[in-house]
Amino acid sequence: MSKTVPVGVSARHIHLSQEHVEALFGQGYQLTEFKPLSQPGQFAANETVAVSGPKGSFPKVRILGPARKATQLEISRTDAFATGIKAPVRESGNISGSAGVTITGPAGEVTIEEGVIVAARHIHFHTDDAEKWGIQDQQQLKVRVGGERGLVFENVIARVSPSFALDMHIDTDEANASGAQTGDAAEIID
Amino acid sequence: MSKTVPVGVSARHIHLSQEHVEALFGQGYQLTEFKPLSQPGQFAANETVAVSGPKGSFPKVRILGPARKATQLEISRTDAFATGIKAPVRESGNISGSAGVTITGPAGEVTIEEGVIVAARHIHFHTDDAEKWGIQDQQQLKVRVGGERGLVFENVIARVSPSFALDMHIDTDEANASGAQTGDAAEIID
Repeated sequence: MSKTVPVGVSARHIHLSQEHVEALFGQGYQLTEFKPLSQPGQFAANETVAVSGPKGSFPKVRILGPARKATQLEISRTDAFATGIKAPVRESGNISGSAGVTITGPAGEVTIEEGVIVAARHIHFHTDDAEKWGIQDQQQLKVRVGGERGLVFENVIARVSPSFALDMHIDTDEANASGAQTGDAAEIID
Repeated sequence: MSKTVPVGVSARHIHLSQEHVEALFGQGYQLTEFKPLSQPGQFAANETVAVSGPKGSFPKVRILGPARKATQLEISRTDAFATGIKAPVRESGNISGSAGVTITGPAGEVTIEEGVIVAARHIHFHTDDAEKWGIQDQQQLKVRVGGERGLVFENVIARVSPSFALDMHIDTDEANASGAQTGDAAEIID
């Protein structure tokens, strides 16, 4: 049985805590939805912020909503070199001891000491897909992308939840290196 | 027998024809050596040029010498998006129908209609290494890079010559996606 998953390419983006939403956009501010994402309930917000590292800045980074417990900026390694932010490769949510950044919004500025990561590539599985294919949460998979820059990604982390939709998330460096685009099919080979 | 090759990461760079060296730097100008490269006789020059595409520019692109028959700019796909230059993935030297760019030097400007490529990943083999491992010129190989972002590159082109030194060339997107750095070891697995 072929285990095919759609690819989703993640450009740099930020998740904000509600506290930081208000520090950046004003007291009581609520993020507004620009468009829904592949994961149920998640959305790209209309709002953007600027982020600044020691060597460079990005003036317009998309916020993904809804607000989360902790603020987390996800950048590519290319972005890390451009900004001088020494972001480690981490699974989303695992931000302890990661890199810091200064975030600027229309109503204020926030500097965080940790929260900047290069997201480890991963696949979101709905529980039903994972069961069908015998895949466990946190299992490390090998996933092949075809084409002229075809390659096999190792260490792709399985994340299983009844609230997930099947989708493999890679960053822009991984997309550019493999030639994969959002909507392309990838195959779990091990 | 393990087939291990050193990785060399190529940042964006340009090769110039002598005609273009003179158009950009002045009549009779000769490139000067900044430091030697891994391939015998090749060098990074002290000279740089600016390159401009429809959406963006890079002010300082390193020239690699000596001068070649045809001018060729090698960029990553990230660079291609940043500049708006629609560069195809190509083997070095195969520039027919590739993308154009405007190049600016201290003494002039040149616009080429073709010559901009995203270099296809490849391994330079000295003839002796290729014979020892049973590898043919132009053979497509699978090459594994380990580590937290470990992956297997497919379609890695073998280039065999008595004037080559063993070295696998990947671009900055491929380096960032795999975590590989210049000097790391990669393994030919197929």
